[in-house]
Order: sequence, then C-alpha cells, then structure tokens
Amino acid sequence: MAKIRVLIVGGTGHTGSSVVDGLLETGNFAVVALIRPASIEKPAVRALQEQGVEIREGDLEESEEDLVKALAEIDIVISCVSASQQQCQIPLANAAKKAGVKRFVPCGFITVAPPAGVMLLRDQKEVVYNHIKRLWLPYTFIDVGWWYQLAFPRLPSGRIDYAVLNATNEVIGGGNVLSAITDLRNIGRYVAKIIADERTLNRMVFAYDTLMTQNQIYDLLEELSKEKIDRNYVPDEALYARGAVVRQSIQENPNDRRQLNLLYLVEYQLSWGVRGDNNPEYAKYLGYLLSKELYPDFEPTSFRDYLESVINGTAKHPYAS
Amino acid sequence: MAKIRVLIVGGTGHTGSSVVDGLLETGNFAVVALIRPASIEKPAVRALQEQGVEIREGDLEESEEDLVKALAEIDIVISCVSASQQQCQIPLANAAKKAGVKRFVPCGFITVAPPAGVMLLRDQKEVVYNHIKRLWLPYTFIDVGWWYQLAFPRLPSGRIDYAVLNATNEVIGGGNVLSAITDLRNIGRYVAKIIADERTLNRMVFAYDTLMTQNQIYDLLEELSKEKIDRNYVPDEALYARGAVVRQSIQENPNDRRQLNLLYLVEYQLSWGVRGDNNPEYAKYLGYLLSKELYPDFEPTSFRDYLESVINGTAKHPYAS
Repeated sequence: MAKIRVLIVGGTGHTGSSVVDGLLETGNFAVVALIRPASIEKPAVRALQEQGVEIREGDLEESEEDLVKALAEIDIVISCVSASQQQCQIPLANAAKKAGVKRFVPCGFITVAPPAGVMLLRDQKEVVYNHIKRLWLPYTFIDVGWWYQLAFPRLPSGRIDYAVLNATNEVIGGGNVLSAITDLRNIGRYVAKIIADERTLNRMVFAYDTLMTQNQIYDLLEELSKEKIDRNYVPDEALYARGAVVRQSIQENPNDRRQLNLLYLVEYQLSWGVRGDNNPEYAKYLGYLLSKELYPDFEPTSFRDYLESVINGTAKHPYAS
Repeated sequence: MAKIRVLIVGGTGHTGSSVVDGLLETGNFAVVALIRPASIEKPAVRALQEQGVEIREGDLEESEEDLVKALAEIDIVISCVSASQQQCQIPLANAAKKAGVKRFVPCGFITVAPPAGVMLLRDQKEVVYNHIKRLWLPYTFIDVGWWYQLAFPRLPSGRIDYAVLNATNEVIGGGNVLSAITDLRNIGRYVAKIIADERTLNRMVFAYDTLMTQNQIYDLLEELSKEKIDRNYVPDEALYARGAVVRQSIQENPNDRRQLNLLYLVEYQLSWGVRGDNNPEYAKYLGYLLSKELYPDFEPTSFRDYLESVINGTAKHPYAS
C-alpha cells in the first residue's frame, strides 16, 4: 500500500517534533516538512532530513498560489504553528482546499476549552476552524490536554530544575480540579492513529493520557522524591485579577507577545484549574471524540513513570533543543 | 409516564406556533408558554390557552432570578424568539442552567450555514450557542432549511397572491442550486421527535422535508398552474453588491431593523443560492445529525401537494394571523 503523504508545518517545534516522530514510528506515512527558505540550513531542519523527512521550501506568508504548489500530492496537512501564527493558517487552508488535500489538521493541540470567551488562544484557533468550515475543507481538530512536561513543580533541593518549566509552584484554587494530562512524546502517536481513522474525519478529537489534580501531582512527586514541596495556592479571584491586569496591558499594546503569552497562561490556568474545562466529560459535551474510546488498546505513559524519569535525571526539558 | 414539561418562548410566532402544535399533537408533552405580562391578554395568547398550553408570565429582560422561578419544574426550554431577540437568550440560558433544565433548544430554525462569516443572523446565534457551551448546559441546536411557504413565486394571474410572501420572483444565480425546504407546519413535528431523543442531546440536528432548486420549483408551479412565470435572474455579483450596500447602511445606522432584515435576506440568498450551504451533505460535514437518518419513517409533506393547496386556495400566508 502506498504511504499516506503528510505535510507538516512547524515540524521542528515541540508538538511538531512529536508528530513527526509519531508518524515515522508507524512506517505508514511519507512525511514532508514545509520549511521557510531562511530556515533550511538550521540544524533542526537537517535533523528532520536525517530522520527521513522530505523538506519542502515554503512560507505561510507567500502567495496562495505558491502554497498550492507546495501542497502538490499531499494527502494530509498537519499544522503545528506557534501561538502567534494561528491566523497564517488561513491562506494555508485556502491552498489546501485548492490542492485537494483530503484532511486538514489545523493547530489545535491545547487543552479542552469552550470555543469562545474563555481562552483568547482558543478563540484565535476558532477563527481558523470557522474559516475551514466555510471552505468545506475536510478537517480534524485535535486537542491534547496539558503536557506531563509542564505539569509538575520544582523540588526544594533543585535536583529536577533541569526539567522544570514553571518554577512558581502555583497551585490553582484549592488544587483539586481534575485535569487531563498527556506525555508530549505521545502526541504524535495519537495523531498517527487519528489521521488514519475515517471515524475522526470532520470531527474534534481529544487525546490524553491521564487525569490528575494538582494536589495529586504534588503528592505523587513528594512520595517519589521524599521531599516536601511548598504549594503556592493562588485563589481564583487572584487569578481573575491577574488576567484583568494583563488584558489591560494588551489593550494598550496589542502586539506585546510577552503579555499575550502571560494572558494565555493565566487563561489556561483559569480554564483547567478553576472552570474545570480540561476533562473528557466536558470534551464529549463539546463534541469531541475521545482517544480512550477510539483506541482502547493505546497504552498511555504512566505519569508516575514519567516523574521517576524526571527524578532520576533522564527526562528532558520540553524547551531544551 | 409523566409528561415531559416543555417551556416555549415565542410560542405565538410562526416557528413557535408550529412547535406548540407539533408538541401537543403527540400527547407526550405538557406545554408551558412564557408570555410577557403586557401580552397576556392578546388573542394569540388566549388561543394558546385554548389549545391547552399553560401560560406563565415572564420576560427575557427581567432579572435572572425571576427567570429561574419561571423555569421551575421545566424539563426542556425551546426558544423561538425573533431575529432581534437572539441575545436576550443569554440570561435565559443562565437561568436554565440554574434551574436545572435538562435540555435547552435555543432559537436556531434557519438554513444550514457555517458558524461564522456568511450570515450575520447565524453569527448572532453562534454567540448564544457559544454561551450555552461555556455554561455546560445540555442543548440541541435545530435548523430546518427554507420554508415551503417562502419558496415559491407569484403567478402572473395573481390568483395565489394571498399566499405569496416574496413577489419579486428572484431566481438566484442560475437557479440550479439544490436547497433544503421544509413545510413550516412540520417543524413542530420534527421538534417533538428531536427533543425526546437521547441521540440528539448536545448535538445539532438538521430537519428538512425535501431538496429542490429554484428552477425545479418554478417548473413545478408552471406545470400545476398552467401559467408561465417570469424568472427574475439575479447574478451572484449583483447579490454580493446588494449585500455590500446594505452592510454600509447598517454601519451608519446599526439599529435600523429594516436594513438588518434586508441583510438577513440577502445573506440567506447568498448562502442557499450561491454558496450552496443549505443541504444535508454540508450539514453533515458541519456536524449536524439529519432528520432523514434519525427518523426514516417520518413522512414529509410533498412540495407538489403543498403547491396544489396554494393554487386551490386552501394554503395560508405564513405571516397571516
């Protein structure tokens, strides 16, 4: 059987790398990466090539016509662009429609949240989703919960600092809201299953490994590390107030990426930590199919095993190159 | 078995009346109508009462607390409010959540269209839909296509003018786009099935009787009436231009209901007549369940029979009281 030809945008990023790995692992896909001409010589791009990825030059900001050419003979497009590039997917979707792409996976890959009014990042994705729907372009929207790699705090000893992203040790609200978490390395494995599955065509899919509260995560890390971890509880109201301050600042400087990233973080925390959006029941209500129901045989990474790898020094900082 | 208690908002309107009739016809529902205090004495309200509908005083613009009281012991809310009242459904949804309503059917009841950027009326409904989703309020969104009662032109003889809504005899584009049409009187029959069906919970449903092009409709009416009908073809570009003019006028006077209604009409025509949105294939793509698949035994009214009733003088003008 001929391999399914998948073009990936953002293939050197965190989610993108996971997707490339997951697709190649199966042997069922010919993977093509769209790379900006200016980035062709970068080590990360050469690494993709060494993995067996075909590199195609292209830029989301070039003409739609050139994008159509870049999509020649591509069956599936997967976009893993950065938060700031969401709207650049609109010409890409137009080109995919013209090129006859059979499935377009725009950049979802976030936590479960309602389509509007809770997370600006989700709202920005919804603009793209709605554009896709206007085009009648076959799609799958995939969300993945919060990463294992972002979900744990630092230890007082500092011995896991090499792998810690957020060292504030903030526990949202009472820390007792269940939230779905996924090993970043599994995202691509889920994607490989989802995009080869007719049941997921023109549907949203929520893929996640497990459900935990922040307190359960802290308890588990304390148990494994034998260290006592300070929990910096942030009351709901304080988080809402933080959001209001950041929003005000963005109103004054709409292109301040630092403030936008802060807003994304606060809104993530409000969504999974206060509202309790990031769970499979709400996902089903919102129309998602669930990975656990689609692929009951998939073995998620155990979060305990993952934390053990963090403690024994073999984990990786998600933003390390 | 106890009857399902349904509260209807806008029960004296066209869609609302059809819904009341359809629910009462089954004998399975206790129907309650929310009526503004100022309208309690109106003949249409007395007529509802005579049909066996319980009248409950209430106003979408009163306090949420009062609305919660008005929703006491209600299982299902169905909203058939006018185009101008879409946003008034937001406090109603809040109240429904607090009152523990088991299913909320906001005012859909239009043609199939994508959620954003094609029809302002659809966009305004999407704001309400998204609010409902933020609340995690159980819902069903129901659309019904274009009404039989609006789908046919006038005859040169004038003998069906009593039933004609739009006498412009405009045929959009080439008049060859298939579009779904539904007998207004069947809307309630579909709704009665849909709201008692667990499969439709938290889903969109598209209920329609048949698919026809405008030319097929004109041909059929010519055949039945033995009259030759002028077809006033409106090219796509002319319709887009008309939309631009109306939009400009609305920008200057955002509350001009007349211009807004004109815009709604132009955008309907562009959606079903030019884009070809209003059909079951696109509906499925957008995530709708289809009445024909859910209820294969439902007998739609034949459009030929309906047109015969128009010609023999027994049809009703949809806006006649």
